[in-house]
Amino acid sequence: MAQAEKTLNDLFLEVLKDMYSAEKQILRALPKMSKVSESEELARAFEKHREETEGQIERIEQVFEMMDKPARAKTCEAMKGIVQEANEVAQEFKSSEALDACLIAAAQTVEHYEITRYGTLKSWATQLGLDDAAKLLDRSLEEEKKTDKLLTQFAEQQANAKAA
Amino acid sequence: MAQAEKTLNDLFLEVLKDMYSAEKQILRALPKMSKVSESEELARAFEKHREETEGQIERIEQVFEMMDKPARAKTCEAMKGIVQEANEVAQEFKSSEALDACLIAAAQTVEHYEITRYGTLKSWATQLGLDDAAKLLDRSLEEEKKTDKLLTQFAEQQANAKAA
Repeated sequence: MAQAEKTLNDLFLEVLKDMYSAEKQILRALPKMSKVSESEELARAFEKHREETEGQIERIEQVFEMMDKPARAKTCEAMKGIVQEANEVAQEFKSSEALDACLIAAAQTVEHYEITRYGTLKSWATQLGLDDAAKLLDRSLEEEKKTDKLLTQFAEQQANAKAA
Repeated sequence: MAQAEKTLNDLFLEVLKDMYSAEKQILRALPKMSKVSESEELARAFEKHREETEGQIERIEQVFEMMDKPARAKTCEAMKGIVQEANEVAQEFKSSEALDACLIAAAQTVEHYEITRYGTLKSWATQLGLDDAAKLLDRSLEEEKKTDKLLTQFAEQQANAKAA
């Protein structure tokens, strides 16, 4: 296919594959973040988000199915960088009072990547008339926004003061 | 210094160095995005954001100065991944009707990284009693949020329909 023939449908599929990879990377990263958390509450929040992530992966698979396409991941380089950086800084702040603040900040870079991607995918799905896909993507988008808000609250009410 | 002695102040500096690197990477990426944009309006939006980015870099330098620290960047791996991915997908959709939608989506992953980082830095600055730094970081945060909103509007009013 000539490049000029590429459409929004192709772009939608491309970013869907990117998010499929991103979510799978997050699924692997969350148990490690939960394990090293200093606070029990933060550990539980990461565990809960891991369960949510499983649901989000299933939704992406449903969207692939709606489009009659096989569910295929394409390595998300952005999430690779985000996770690499999170690991490095968590290692550097290991056993310090600032570790939870550090883990929360890293998790929020993950959430914001997901928020922008699900927002974009939902908007493209609507444009393409894929209303059922748009609904599924919106559910994941709302979950990510909620998780981001919870992390901000946890940081501002507990972790930052502890770290300071 | 033993790891256990690391504090929020160290973490703040660490993420400030990360953002200094991120902004410099963005400053290099924006002219390329402006150059390949299909629409004049989008090209101008990227150019305007490049100018804003210069101001944001200056603000980061001012925060380093307020803390009596030399302004030093530490390679932001997350932004490296985000920019790499943006370049790859822009190349793939080059000369297609979906290119602008693709560029906007990529720019929004950049914006969201900055939104979460400036939000975190502002919150930490407040916790550390660095009120002047918090104010500067808030100005950059508000600029990023505004840019993200403009990109969403441009996508939904023009680029997505053109791409579909």
